[in-house]
Amino acid sequence: MQNFELTILGCSSATPTSKRNPTAQLLNIAERFFLIDCGEATQIQLRRFKLKFQRINHIFISHLHGDHYLGLMGLISSMHLLGRTVELHLYCPAELQEIIEIQFKHSQSYIKFPIVYHAHNYVNNELIFEDERVEVRTIVLNHRIPCCGFVFKEKPLLPTISKEAIHLFQLTVDEIVAIKAGGDFVKRSGEIIKNSELLSIPNSPRSYAYCSDTCYDERLLEYIKGVNLLYHEATFLNEMQERAKETYHTTALQAGTIAKKAEVKQLMIGHYSARYKDLQPLLDEAKSVFENTVLAIEGESTIVHN
Amino acid sequence: MQNFELTILGCSSATPTSKRNPTAQLLNIAERFFLIDCGEATQIQLRRFKLKFQRINHIFISHLHGDHYLGLMGLISSMHLLGRTVELHLYCPAELQEIIEIQFKHSQSYIKFPIVYHAHNYVNNELIFEDERVEVRTIVLNHRIPCCGFVFKEKPLLPTISKEAIHLFQLTVDEIVAIKAGGDFVKRSGEIIKNSELLSIPNSPRSYAYCSDTCYDERLLEYIKGVNLLYHEATFLNEMQERAKETYHTTALQAGTIAKKAEVKQLMIGHYSARYKDLQPLLDEAKSVFENTVLAIEGESTIVHN
Repeated sequence: MQNFELTILGCSSATPTSKRNPTAQLLNIAERFFLIDCGEATQIQLRRFKLKFQRINHIFISHLHGDHYLGLMGLISSMHLLGRTVELHLYCPAELQEIIEIQFKHSQSYIKFPIVYHAHNYVNNELIFEDERVEVRTIVLNHRIPCCGFVFKEKPLLPTISKEAIHLFQLTVDEIVAIKAGGDFVKRSGEIIKNSELLSIPNSPRSYAYCSDTCYDERLLEYIKGVNLLYHEATFLNEMQERAKETYHTTALQAGTIAKKAEVKQLMIGHYSARYKDLQPLLDEAKSVFENTVLAIEGESTIVHN
Repeated sequence: MQNFELTILGCSSATPTSKRNPTAQLLNIAERFFLIDCGEATQIQLRRFKLKFQRINHIFISHLHGDHYLGLMGLISSMHLLGRTVELHLYCPAELQEIIEIQFKHSQSYIKFPIVYHAHNYVNNELIFEDERVEVRTIVLNHRIPCCGFVFKEKPLLPTISKEAIHLFQLTVDEIVAIKAGGDFVKRSGEIIKNSELLSIPNSPRSYAYCSDTCYDERLLEYIKGVNLLYHEATFLNEMQERAKETYHTTALQAGTIAKKAEVKQLMIGHYSARYKDLQPLLDEAKSVFENTVLAIEGESTIVHN
């Protein structure tokens, strides 16, 4: 089975603490390394957790609050100083290009690799990245400034014929192609081996949805329906739901409710307010609605399962 | 004696390592907290070392290479989010204002405290800050882009009369003023107590010079002559002097030479290239020319002595 693994680099909300960094996540799907948001000190976190940042070719920035992008200049600078030549794709608010270019201009830096900007259109379910293994679509989140979430999904894998069957029946290439296309196999003896006995049907494609920052908004449900892992921000406990509403954030109870209504397989909460030293009450609150919830913890990796 | 203490927050050169952050220093002179450069994650370092960042009212940025200023947006944002209303003074390249304002514009942030920009004129010995206890002057460094160092100096303290003498001789306020102005004291018996016996002459004012980033340049000498503590970058070992020259940096041997020629009291080296895991060879090299050298180490504080 191909890799599908999420590593948390930062899980704090706007003001970091001495223990928690601002938002950043590294998602590995089939050895594509996607960086999702890039708060201050993301490059330091990548080094700390021994994750090679030159393997990152695609960076997704949800919105232009500092805790989601301020680490980008430093990361790009280090990529440059360490000799990168491979192009880097940024999926981000259009304005980020101006922010980056003005800083390179004033530092008189001439980055040796191309940066390809893909500006958000803030359209639900828009396909913004695709290759033979993965596709990424946007979700419009409901925040104080324009903000996008992302759904990462494996492409359906083709059925495979086991090596054992290939050897056992001494299959030719033409026969393999015919079986993959749905045909049965007829032995010389005339015995028929059914297609279903030869083909192993792969698991259904897995998906990961990233929803930060947003207030509670049921319009998200249709785009995250049934995902294998949902990351949803849970900045506050529900006792602060008024504050959550004012600041366009979500409570842990609300994150659990979204997970339940969207019938996702697993929920991960994060983007914790600095006021919570102990995260257990946030976890308990989300679990009271949606049992299969885990906390985002820096340095921890989660494998996305079917 | 009033405080004069330097705390290192970051001592790495352009690419940070998992152990060393980019440049930032906190200088406390008589409870004025001056932040000198502000590399990425400076706010995290301040928290880590339990230094209250709302006490910082003056920030000095040497130049616009990212490792010297990329932590500023995050620090200012956190100051704002934590309710700051007191004005913040930035002594920096003029272009920094544009970099900061464009980011606040795109994040739709309206900072609740005034930011007062003092643009560098790149003039040697220019007085850029002064109050009753401290003055700060610029030094023009020799780097790839315009870059300023800074000399922080105590104001001369006035002579004081000890409490013991005031009680012993039952001095009146007028008599104290006269003694401070240089007069002797005549007792009722006619006995003369000499001025020098009554006044305690304070130590001469202490000074700290910050020189990063720069190549070896003897034009600095006259502005840092005899300072109590000189911080001078030492990015490379001398075996890499060609690389140092190309990149407008200094070797440890050259930093020692500058300290010796400027007849400073103590030298601190820093801004180490990421290639040096072990800093001892850099220290040894600087010490081979100038014995009273120390390494900049994150989290360590140095009291500036006469």
